[in-house]
Parts: sequence; C-alpha cells; structure tokens
Amino acid sequence: MAKQILLNAFNMNCIGHINHGLWTHPRDTSTQYKTLDYWTNLARLLERGLFDGLFLADIVGTYDIYGQSLDVTLKESIQLPVNDPLLLVSAMAAVTRHLGFGLTANLTYEAPYLFARRLSTLDHLSNGRVGWNIVTGYLDSAARAMGLAQQPEHDRRYDQADEYLQVLYKLLEGSWADDAVVADRQQRIYARPDRVCKVRHQGEFYQVEGYHLSEPSPQRTPVLFQAGSSARGLAFAGNHAECVFISGQDKAATRAQVDKVRAAAQAAGRDAQAVKVFMGITVIVAATEQQAQARHAEYLQHASAEAGVAHFAASTGIDFAAFELDEPIAFRQGNAIQSATRQLQDNAWTRRRLLQQHALGGRYVTLVGAPEQVAEQLIAWIDETGLDGFNLTRTVTPESFEAFIDLVIPQLQQRGRYKTAYAEGTLREKLFKADHPYLPADHPGSAYRFAFAPTPTGALHHA
Amino acid sequence: MAKQILLNAFNMNCIGHINHGLWTHPRDTSTQYKTLDYWTNLARLLERGLFDGLFLADIVGTYDIYGQSLDVTLKESIQLPVNDPLLLVSAMAAVTRHLGFGLTANLTYEAPYLFARRLSTLDHLSNGRVGWNIVTGYLDSAARAMGLAQQPEHDRRYDQADEYLQVLYKLLEGSWADDAVVADRQQRIYARPDRVCKVRHQGEFYQVEGYHLSEPSPQRTPVLFQAGSSARGLAFAGNHAECVFISGQDKAATRAQVDKVRAAAQAAGRDAQAVKVFMGITVIVAATEQQAQARHAEYLQHASAEAGVAHFAASTGIDFAAFELDEPIAFRQGNAIQSATRQLQDNAWTRRRLLQQHALGGRYVTLVGAPEQVAEQLIAWIDETGLDGFNLTRTVTPESFEAFIDLVIPQLQQRGRYKTAYAEGTLREKLFKADHPYLPADHPGSAYRFAFAPTPTGALHHA
Repeated sequence: MAKQILLNAFNMNCIGHINHGLWTHPRDTSTQYKTLDYWTNLARLLERGLFDGLFLADIVGTYDIYGQSLDVTLKESIQLPVNDPLLLVSAMAAVTRHLGFGLTANLTYEAPYLFARRLSTLDHLSNGRVGWNIVTGYLDSAARAMGLAQQPEHDRRYDQADEYLQVLYKLLEGSWADDAVVADRQQRIYARPDRVCKVRHQGEFYQVEGYHLSEPSPQRTPVLFQAGSSARGLAFAGNHAECVFISGQDKAATRAQVDKVRAAAQAAGRDAQAVKVFMGITVIVAATEQQAQARHAEYLQHASAEAGVAHFAASTGIDFAAFELDEPIAFRQGNAIQSATRQLQDNAWTRRRLLQQHALGGRYVTLVGAPEQVAEQLIAWIDETGLDGFNLTRTVTPESFEAFIDLVIPQLQQRGRYKTAYAEGTLREKLFKADHPYLPADHPGSAYRFAFAPTPTGALHHA
Repeated sequence: MAKQILLNAFNMNCIGHINHGLWTHPRDTSTQYKTLDYWTNLARLLERGLFDGLFLADIVGTYDIYGQSLDVTLKESIQLPVNDPLLLVSAMAAVTRHLGFGLTANLTYEAPYLFARRLSTLDHLSNGRVGWNIVTGYLDSAARAMGLAQQPEHDRRYDQADEYLQVLYKLLEGSWADDAVVADRQQRIYARPDRVCKVRHQGEFYQVEGYHLSEPSPQRTPVLFQAGSSARGLAFAGNHAECVFISGQDKAATRAQVDKVRAAAQAAGRDAQAVKVFMGITVIVAATEQQAQARHAEYLQHASAEAGVAHFAASTGIDFAAFELDEPIAFRQGNAIQSATRQLQDNAWTRRRLLQQHALGGRYVTLVGAPEQVAEQLIAWIDETGLDGFNLTRTVTPESFEAFIDLVIPQLQQRGRYKTAYAEGTLREKLFKADHPYLPADHPGSAYRFAFAPTPTGALHHA
C-alpha cells in the first residue's frame, strides 16, 4: 500500500517566519500573532484539514548579521519580535482534540529539571499530543543575551544534548512507575512512595538529584523531533529522533539525506522506519493552474527577497549585504553552517542569485499549480525520495492553509495518500500507527523506564 | 467611601495545595488538575464571581523533611505532583475577558532573558491580565535538583532578586519604545530600528546583552506580587511589589504586618497605598450557620492534619515527625524560617497542638458561617487591619468557590464592599483604578523606560 503523507503546518510565534515580507499583503493576518484568536482559529482550521501537527519553530537571539544591524530584521519582522511557543499550546489544545503540537525549545538555555516539567505539563493538558523539536541553537546573539561570550562549539553542543536527553529520560521515564499513581480516596493514597524514585545524575554538563515533579503523562517522553544534518547531528538523530525535519532543494539530494537519516537510526540499533522524515515545502494552489500562477505573481509583489537573504545571512553567518550584486560569494566550510550551505558550495553564488532564489522571501521548494498538479507533485516527492511527510510553510495566512485544505487535501485523499479521519490515541500512536503511547522498545529512552521492583518497604527506592 | 475588597482565588497546578487531604472528599475534583476542562471551568466560574484574579502558587522541589521522606507528601499529594502554572494561562485567558492571573515563578531558576519573554508572551495573549509572584525559593531539594549543593543564603537571594528585577525592567521597559512598532504595510516597516535598543547588563549575578525578543505588551511589566515578610523581604517589597501576600493569624499581628509593608513602600519613595495587601483565608459558608458548621464537620472528616503538619515541616525545616505528641518543639530563629514561625516563637508548641491547628489540613484563618456572618467578618478583617483583599483558598473544589460566589459575594455587594461589574482595562488598571496600564511613575521600574531620543540615523541606539 502506498504511504500516506504526514503533514505538519510550519509556523512560529512571530510575524515573518519563512516566506518573508508577506505580512505586508493586505489579506495577511500574521501581525495578529499576539492574540489568542489567531492561534485558536489556526488550530481549528488545521484540525479541519486533518493535519497531524502544528510545528512551531523558535529562536532565541536575533538576526544581526546582514548589514551588521537589525535594520532589515526589524523592518520586515524577520523572526523578531518572537514570542514563546510553549505558552500557546493550552489554548489551542482546548479547541482541538487530535491536532499535535511540535514545539521547538533550545535545550542550551533550559534547565532540564524544569523543562521536563514543562513537557509533562503540556503532555497532560493536551492529552498526549506534544512533541519536542530538539535544538541547541547557533546564534552568538543568543549566547550573549544569556550571559555567555559565545555559543559552545558545534559538536560539543551535541555532546551536551546527548547528556540532556539522558537527564530527561531519567525524569520522564524513570522517576514514576506506571502504577505509582493510584488515587485511592478510601486508602488515602494518591501516589505510592515505593513506586516513585529519585533521579540521580552526575554528568559532565548536568547534575540533577530529585524526583520528577510531574506524574507520568500520556506519552511520558513527548515525540522527539530534530533537524540536524551534520555528521554529528545525524548521529544524534539516529539515537534520539522520532521525526526528522530536513530542508531539501532537489529530489536527489533529499533522497540521499533521507537515506542518511534512516542509516543513522539503523546504526543506533533502531528500525530504519522508526524515524519519520519531513521536508519543509511551500505551496501556492488555486482552482486552476492559471489562477495559481496569478496568485503566485501577486504574492511576489509583497514578498521581500532581501529579508529572505537577511535571514539566510544569519543562518550562514555571512553578511551578504557586504557584497556587490554580482560579486562571487565564497561559502565557508564548517560544521556550524554545513546544513545551510551544503547545496551551495559547488556553485558560483552572488547576491543577485541569492535574491532570485529568495523571491518569495524564503528558500524552500515551492510548488505552484492546480490542486491535482500539487497533489501529484507532493506524491512524487514522497515516492521518489523516501520522505514521510511535509512541514507546510505559510505564505499569506490563513488563506494559504485554507487553500491547501480545501483544494489539495481532497486530491490526496482521492489518491489514497492522506487520511480521511484521525486515528485515536496520542500523537506518537497516530504518527507511527503504534499501539502504545510510549517510546518504542528499540528507542534508547525506553531503557530508562522505571526499573525498581517493588519491595515490602520500598525504602530504598526514594531514599 | 469604604474600601472595596479585592479578591483572588488561591490555587496551584496540583492536588493538595493548602487545605490538605480534601482530595479524598467524594465531591472534590482536584485530581482533575491535569485536564484543561478543570482549569477553563474554574476560570469561567471565577469570572462569574468577578474575582480580580486567580493566584497560582508554585514550588520547585519536594517536601522531604517530615519523617525525612516523601511518604506523606506522595500519599496525600502535598504539592507533589505539581505541574507548571504558566502553561495553563492561555487556555484560561481564551475563555475569560477580565480575570487576572497571578503567576508564581522562582527567579533563581529562570534565566531573565527567556523569563522576560514568557511574561511578555502571556501579557500579550491575555491582553494585559498577568501578574508575576516573585519568589526565590527556600528548598534545598530544589537546589539539588537544579545542580546546586544548596540554596543561596536568604539575604543573598534578595540581592540576586534585586538585580534580576533590574534586568527585567531593562528588557520589558527599556528595549522597545512605545512607538517602535508601526506595522506600516505601505512603507514596509513593522518596527522602527531607531526605536529598539539593545539591553546591556553586566552585573554581579547576571550578564545580558541583547534586544528583548517581544514587542511591548499591554502592561509591559506584569503586576508584581511578592510575599516576603523578613526585614530584607520587606525592603524588597517596598521597592518592587505592587501586591503583597501575607499570611496572618490574628488581626493585631496582621495590622502590624500591613503597616510594615506600607512603611517599606514609603521608605522606597512610593505611596503607602501603592501596594495592595492580600491575606490568605479559608471560608466555609452555607445558607445557615448550622449548615456551614455541618459542612465544616464533614470536611474535617476528609482533611489530613498530618499532611498539613508535613507541609509546615517543609516550610520550617523541622521534622515534626521526630517529636513525641506532647514533646515541646523549639522553633529555630533565623531568616529562612522567620516568616513561617513568627507567630510561634513565643509559645509552647507540641506536635499535638500543631495537629489541632492543622485540623482542616491548612493553617490559614478559617471563617465558618452563614453568608452574612462571613461577609461581616471579611469586612472586619479589612477595616481593622488595613488589608486590601484576600487570597481565598479552596477546600472541596469547585464547591467551595461556588458557595463563596453564590452566597458571600452578594452580601459583600449589598454592603457596597465588592464590585458589581468589572472595570475595563488591564489587571493593573483594574486593581489600582489606574488610568494607565504601565508601572506608575513612583515605581522604580518606570525609571528604566525607553529613554533614547530618536535621531536621524538611529545608529547609536541599537549598535
């Protein structure tokens, strides 16, 4: 049976996310990101479209590379201002029943003991619908704002992330047994002391000695998302990630990247299909191809290619504003910018060419066409690359999500490539058609599950 | 005109908050704290009762003093498990329009740069309805969970808190001018670069160099709550607090404490009435005094005095379980437990007496009576002590809040001592009948307001 396509809406608690400049479009509502209605309406819309999840990006720090200032960043609101994504979830969860929430949080700046509680709290409130997109950050502006001179070095950040995940597994999986909470009013026992144990972690980066503050949530560990594409990042993903987000430019490179992710999972002793791979994509669809082209042309009038390049400048650390339009740009090699520049290193790039590439304000694969054309192309991407699904960017919001739901989803459904109803269960059960809400047995996190046999006194377990 | 009484519901994202053991009552719903309906129903209920706010306590760490274990803590769920309070807010804000949210967060464990964004995000989403209850924590179990050997010393925590507030003021008040955001689609200017400036803070405890990530929220700095009662705590409150929460046992001591708070504000150059003082209180009310007494007796059947004493053990650091029932208990002097033990030091205490004092599982002033009796007593507390309002604990929830709203509120309204409708505006405007949503001019935080004059280039302001 052909694979059903998984689908996340890709968004961020800010105005300019991927396709920059479109906030100036008269029908765009992204400047309302500060209001609850903006988000609860979006959540309802996505659930109408049977989206698997709303994937919320985040950034700590500001894009100050382009022109060595914040001028374009502030004028075009390039991920600044940016509000906290986790605080949106309970309102959206309250108006939906199935939609998942993929939440980006930078572990470098979140103490694991409290972050574990945040994850558990949201997993409880959403009834098992949250995922965490694990990022370690890459901006020196973030490090300075957090009191550090600069970011830790790239591979060291992954060492730290590995240990951070260990601490989280200990708290989320290991501190409370499944049968710890009995809530027995007659016996006056809410939780059994012999089934709750203290976590002790003395590591290189973290020292934690304490009980997890939250009782077990539906998924315990939320679905783990990750987006690293360096060798070290892939090794991390192979160990920990359940969903990997990649940004492809062509099918051959995407196929190669998908294969690498699956090989990394296998290298870590997991099933190659234990990781779902999502690619970012932009879609402009209308009833006919002509109308879609017209809409694309209209959007281009409001998009800001310069803002897109300014964003890319922050991703690569290169001040493109310092180059003449046709001056050759040499991309540096190196881990820190490997991901963003992989496809660029073999070519002759100029600022003019970058501006052309960012015509819609972003640099994701962009499909423009009639509903059946878009559906066929999406299916081709899946079938020819091994991808599992897409993170769908917004252009003019909410109309780009509405158009996709009204026009493309039915085409995918007719072709048997998209669900016609949600499955029951947690986000993990839905994404993996799993019969259990926890991390699977071949995931290293499952090894941290509460392992203390009950004893008559229980005294040793929480001492 | 006699003072109108301010009123917060006092609650926590957990089961056993103040009046312990009542989760075992057949009508109590507090074990549903993990669900969104529990909180959205509560928020709607409180708004029906015209409550000024829902005050959410929080604790990082666990109560492991009593019996030197977590046995009673877990069995009676004494503030464990405890979920994150901030993550509840957006769901409750979405179903209300006026209710405020007083949110406890321990600054010792929250990086100011990211915490400032959390506050701004919630102030945006709630349209200016959040307050922050500033705490520094007191549990060594929290310090160990966060990788420290023990808590910093009491007065040092306040030094750190002073600097923390400075950093927050710089970010919340000083980074973005009121006119920074213009959202001009024609000119393509979302925010004016010359009206956003970088915060630079090089202090003893914190180093922050960066732009606040959020644009100005309705209140900028949320309403500041605080509960310190030591000399150092009062000095801090005098400088920073807009609302102070005290726990009184009798009117004379409460009057003295209220006077101290107002004197501290004056000592800091502020108006004595610039600080609203709230006292925690428990109310059991029914249509008649007899019914109220019967209800009290019924509640006592389910309450746990031992859990109340175990909670108090954590507050004081004294293992009361180690004492015989009638063995004298010597309360240590010292800042760390000064607040909890102030009223105890002159008396001969035993475990038996503590258990009697905690008969309802808590140790707040408890009023039991018919609606008019309770109303008259509340008014007497206000008039004889100088208090501005109350934090109303829950007993059996939600029926204790429902009974208060249905029976006591109308009595207070009839006496002209409680509002009959919400005022418009932010939480700060409502609480202080202010005509402006920001910190008042005599509050030290207002000195940090964006102070850069615009220049033709603006280059210096964010360089």
